[in-house]
Amino acid sequence: MASNTYGKLFAVTTFGESHGPAIGCVVDGCPPGLEIDAADFRHDLERRATGKSRHTSARHESDEVEILSGVYEGRSTGTPIALLIRNTDARSRDYAKIAEQFRPGHADYTYWHKYGIRDPRGGGRSSARETTMRVAAGVIARKWLAQRHGIRIQGFLSQLGDIRPASMDLSVVEDNPFFWPDAAQVPQLEAYMDALRKSGDSVGARVDVWADGVPPGWGEPIYGKLDGELAGALMSINAVKGVEIGVGFGAVTQKGSEHRDQLGPDGFASNHAGGILGGISSGQRVTCSVAFKPTSSLRLPVDSLDIYGNTVEVVTTGRHDPCVGIRATPICEAMVAAVLMDQALRHRAQCGDVEVPAIPTPTAIPG
Amino acid sequence: MASNTYGKLFAVTTFGESHGPAIGCVVDGCPPGLEIDAADFRHDLERRATGKSRHTSARHESDEVEILSGVYEGRSTGTPIALLIRNTDARSRDYAKIAEQFRPGHADYTYWHKYGIRDPRGGGRSSARETTMRVAAGVIARKWLAQRHGIRIQGFLSQLGDIRPASMDLSVVEDNPFFWPDAAQVPQLEAYMDALRKSGDSVGARVDVWADGVPPGWGEPIYGKLDGELAGALMSINAVKGVEIGVGFGAVTQKGSEHRDQLGPDGFASNHAGGILGGISSGQRVTCSVAFKPTSSLRLPVDSLDIYGNTVEVVTTGRHDPCVGIRATPICEAMVAAVLMDQALRHRAQCGDVEVPAIPTPTAIPG
Amino acid sequence: MASNTYGKLFAVTTFGESHGPAIGCVVDGCPPGLEIDAADFRHDLERRATGKSRHTSARHESDEVEILSGVYEGRSTGTPIALLIRNTDARSRDYAKIAEQFRPGHADYTYWHKYGIRDPRGGGRSSARETTMRVAAGVIARKWLAQRHGIRIQGFLSQLGDIRPASMDLSVVEDNPFFWPDAAQVPQLEAYMDALRKSGDSVGARVDVWADGVPPGWGEPIYGKLDGELAGALMSINAVKGVEIGVGFGAVTQKGSEHRDQLGPDGFASNHAGGILGGISSGQRVTCSVAFKPTSSLRLPVDSLDIYGNTVEVVTTGRHDPCVGIRATPICEAMVAAVLMDQALRHRAQCGDVEVPAIPTPTAIPG
Amino acid sequence: MASNTYGKLFAVTTFGESHGPAIGCVVDGCPPGLEIDAADFRHDLERRATGKSRHTSARHESDEVEILSGVYEGRSTGTPIALLIRNTDARSRDYAKIAEQFRPGHADYTYWHKYGIRDPRGGGRSSARETTMRVAAGVIARKWLAQRHGIRIQGFLSQLGDIRPASMDLSVVEDNPFFWPDAAQVPQLEAYMDALRKSGDSVGARVDVWADGVPPGWGEPIYGKLDGELAGALMSINAVKGVEIGVGFGAVTQKGSEHRDQLGPDGFASNHAGGILGGISSGQRVTCSVAFKPTSSLRLPVDSLDIYGNTVEVVTTGRHDPCVGIRATPICEAMVAAVLMDQALRHRAQCGDVEVPAIPTPTAIPG
Repeated sequence: MASNTYGKLFAVTTFGESHGPAIGCVVDGCPPGLEIDAADFRHDLERRATGKSRHTSARHESDEVEILSGVYEGRSTGTPIALLIRNTDARSRDYAKIAEQFRPGHADYTYWHKYGIRDPRGGGRSSARETTMRVAAGVIARKWLAQRHGIRIQGFLSQLGDIRPASMDLSVVEDNPFFWPDAAQVPQLEAYMDALRKSGDSVGARVDVWADGVPPGWGEPIYGKLDGELAGALMSINAVKGVEIGVGFGAVTQKGSEHRDQLGPDGFASNHAGGILGGISSGQRVTCSVAFKPTSSLRLPVDSLDIYGNTVEVVTTGRHDPCVGIRATPICEAMVAAVLMDQALRHRAQCGDVEVPAIPTPTAIPG
Repeated sequence: MASNTYGKLFAVTTFGESHGPAIGCVVDGCPPGLEIDAADFRHDLERRATGKSRHTSARHESDEVEILSGVYEGRSTGTPIALLIRNTDARSRDYAKIAEQFRPGHADYTYWHKYGIRDPRGGGRSSARETTMRVAAGVIARKWLAQRHGIRIQGFLSQLGDIRPASMDLSVVEDNPFFWPDAAQVPQLEAYMDALRKSGDSVGARVDVWADGVPPGWGEPIYGKLDGELAGALMSINAVKGVEIGVGFGAVTQKGSEHRDQLGPDGFASNHAGGILGGISSGQRVTCSVAFKPTSSLRLPVDSLDIYGNTVEVVTTGRHDPCVGIRATPICEAMVAAVLMDQALRHRAQCGDVEVPAIPTPTAIPG
Repeated sequence: MASNTYGKLFAVTTFGESHGPAIGCVVDGCPPGLEIDAADFRHDLERRATGKSRHTSARHESDEVEILSGVYEGRSTGTPIALLIRNTDARSRDYAKIAEQFRPGHADYTYWHKYGIRDPRGGGRSSARETTMRVAAGVIARKWLAQRHGIRIQGFLSQLGDIRPASMDLSVVEDNPFFWPDAAQVPQLEAYMDALRKSGDSVGARVDVWADGVPPGWGEPIYGKLDGELAGALMSINAVKGVEIGVGFGAVTQKGSEHRDQLGPDGFASNHAGGILGGISSGQRVTCSVAFKPTSSLRLPVDSLDIYGNTVEVVTTGRHDPCVGIRATPICEAMVAAVLMDQALRHRAQCGDVEVPAIPTPTAIPG
Repeated sequence: MASNTYGKLFAVTTFGESHGPAIGCVVDGCPPGLEIDAADFRHDLERRATGKSRHTSARHESDEVEILSGVYEGRSTGTPIALLIRNTDARSRDYAKIAEQFRPGHADYTYWHKYGIRDPRGGGRSSARETTMRVAAGVIARKWLAQRHGIRIQGFLSQLGDIRPASMDLSVVEDNPFFWPDAAQVPQLEAYMDALRKSGDSVGARVDVWADGVPPGWGEPIYGKLDGELAGALMSINAVKGVEIGVGFGAVTQKGSEHRDQLGPDGFASNHAGGILGGISSGQRVTCSVAFKPTSSLRLPVDSLDIYGNTVEVVTTGRHDPCVGIRATPICEAMVAAVLMDQALRHRAQCGDVEVPAIPTPTAIPG
């Protein structure tokens, strides 16, 4: 499969550079009959959008999605759904002087070595602008998963630098600009971000995504395991440095007697596995956690090299998030949705006839 | 691509159940002319083998690889290389009584729901026995990477339960049964494992893999990023719950001014990125870290359900590692090798003509 | 790989319906550094365009390609190249009454059964309008093949109904609206087509494509053979019912002593194989032949069914070619180009290091 | 996808050389629960086997299939099914002297240029021996298609050199060694073949395959069309030079009013389309026709070159069929079966929920 496509049966191909004419994607494999409207994309795109609050960067894109194909009279037809967003706020002048510099922590150095040519405007293809189309494609996946299987996917920020949630209340996540599950901590986060912005520095973050309602049996052993696909998809998001399923690295210090989730008449007694056993969903909540590095675009100057080997000082003056992890939440959700939908279709292809003999499926608790 | 194949251009398809007639793999895409001999596989398979020491489980397999195709007069011909290992030590009687039970922490419950049928003997396809063929395929990848590009891949155990290496000396890793980088700690580890085995319990572990000599430019943005592929491949190994690249989750609490690896005339000043920027190798050491859960097969009894919904007590009497992470080291190395080789071929396909204008490539230090 | 993508390393994903907002494609895998300009697409798109002469249908599209991504300062960057053409001459009213009818010979009946919904406007996704983007993608492939390998690809009409070329002169093919290799026959063809149009009927055609300059060694045995890929790609063009390589079905009545192309110091003595042996190019001219059915859209009425099972009379009043094979010539060329480019990259991936020991490669004659 | 794998969801990877230790395949994607026994493979393998009659070559292989994985207690488990056949009748001495020669009409010349190395024993990987595993994999597909969908696939020889069937009676096809549909012609064929063998020459053939019972709706537009997939799969068989669907090249001289298959209350009035419209099955019989070239391995001497550029005389003394098309019949059937099964699973993945509103589906006549 090509390098700009994810998914096997629900296949999303994205294209576009940060400051080119447009970004877009082609969603191939959506089942026919799903209601899709251009307005469907607004909510999640706004959640991801820069300019959402003073705590994210100031780029103002309308990010209005145009549906170019695959939808007839408001419903998917089974043919590829192409989505397009014009780049209307591309300020190329901001980036002119970095064309020959290698910004530390960015893909400049590696793109240069790989391709021998690169589009320096706003990071070109390596810009997080690309993730807009992941979110757009994810909207389709989420809608189908919700309507067909009742699946709900919710992400939230689970760590901002050293700050962790003091309590966990998913109902408040959408009410604050940090996707934070503890409303009482929001002032603290605002103060922290204000100080950070003032300092010219940035910080990392952790995002968690929970998927509820995933039926047991999804996931393709051996090399298409649900956890393997999630890890690959999430790690492909800009700035991600780590992925965990369930307790993740916490499993390193667990004993087996503690880790194994006991199964009884009332369901599972715990969910250290994150809803996945042997690469296949168990019916429990699917949980994953993603580490985002701090953005490397800082007002603080740093020495680097240019393409001629000269030492240069790099200062980023453009708009940049002091914490890219914050608005990565809907991006992570979108990737989880895309992976789940792909697995749903793959499962149905091979095992569509499987009828598990009537056994008392335990209530899948706790999440 | 099918679910039992990993890799796009260096494609490895594995097959076989733990207690079936044989396990094997087909390696498709190996360049022609590589010297391959059945003896090449012995070293790594022994490193992975059960029965290596008293600290790993007691299954005794000869694990002698038969080359069925793709090699003529000792060299690869460019046609698929099929490798076969007969299962000679399959004790089916050990597993008879678990056929209808769902062992907590195992794939029994999920395979049952997915397929409606499962081979219960030794875990069937979900057994770690499958990883033998990953190691075998990895041998071919490692050989080609070493000969063609001078790449060296070395894994080691970086955490066993709560124990971490007190010092880091790769030269001792192969001299102890724990792949541990501090020889002085080996007695401590032995005592820990003896106590653990005695208790009937198990523990998790962390494995690190370092790849040196990877040239800059490998990795396929956007959905075939080197880090994304590594994460997907490593997460697909049995019992893995987390993957990190570079500092991994450590990036969550880093500031941007700390994380971004400065580039100067003498090369990179640090390697928080783990040798990958924007999904493409930078020429630095590629580093990744993998979390293994404790095995769920314990002598300690636990309640569970059977396929009829009855409560049953599960006790594992067969041979099992108290820490599966230990011998996972060569498996992780093999997956890293397979990913790198696939990326090498993918890079050459698209960018084989790229000649980066003569720039003083900095010495890639530190690893 | 998804169903709207062809190619493995040179991967072309097309989207769009005949009367939707736009058609487009994403070309993924183009090597970096290739000069690409929007004007490059004009020539081949005009060759394919409806309205080229009175012998093809009257739809007037500007078919101006917009490059949305992947090109920076006139050169490919290695990132996906998205191409877009707006549908400006979509007359939806022409097609309103066929929404519930199954037009004989069309995909109405089968799309209905597959998807349970279809876009009836102009044939929707099953319209030959989609082939516009094949031609556009083919332009990129042809340019790279020509510049990198000196490959020339030329198609021509080799049969129109019962009429066959009396002589073979490729130099005149581009000078007549039939892509016909015998200039003297053009008046005969014009008269034939005028009579055909008058009658309200249509007729089939045969198109040949020749590729010169393909180096020996391209093609992926066993299931990616050059001839297999050509057959699959050409058969996927609308209205194609047959594909031949070299002598094709003529081989059925040949003796082995006649068919096998003798090899001597002056090269091959014949080319019955069509330049492909064992699925791999031999360095001779690659030749293939494609059968196009007559269009089923006729002014002549025909009985059919509607989606309720009622008998209906179908009359096509819209614009339609009396011989779709004529302007299929550049489409066939484009598919051959796409297949060759994909094979070039696949070959380089696995065999980029192969240096065949110096042997006197025979001059590859005749074509 | 790798080059030795066909199919996307029903994925068959074959391996092995003509005179290596073994040939085999891995069938990935078979739904669970299908009854599979080693004896199932015998019938079709015998139909394909050399040594079936005096009219095919004399290699005697037991061709006993060993099932290595994926089957438990006689039923498929959903995991990969590996099949193995040992090469027991490999007479390497027959082929020693051709190691440095390029046999005209064979893949020697092209493999040499591609890989720079080749296994010359019996044609190595390019030998038709590989097709044994296609037939084996096809057995699984045919069984599933028959049980799940009632599909019957039957091939027959439709032309041998200049001889065509005088009548068409499928019921006699399996009763003669030529898979010939007119029993009265069998003596004529025997005399023809005897004379051909005596002359040392060979001849081409045409094979037709019919698939009955394919439901409407299978096939993946645009680049996974049922006809496109059939063409690609059939063209990948050794010695194939042409593929037709329905009337194939006969469509070139048809008028549209003749070609379009009329649809009425009693079903389709004809089947020029070969059961496929717009790349999707119509419910009619799927028909395809395949051209086989005459084998190039002849007792009649021919000049050629060796790898040093010297002129050499090539005489084939080993066993070879004077008409390879004869026993290609079951191979073609197997490829049709594999394509159909792959399409069945792909269809179910995307359109598994589609319920076409109750319309009076016409009886699909004639075949």
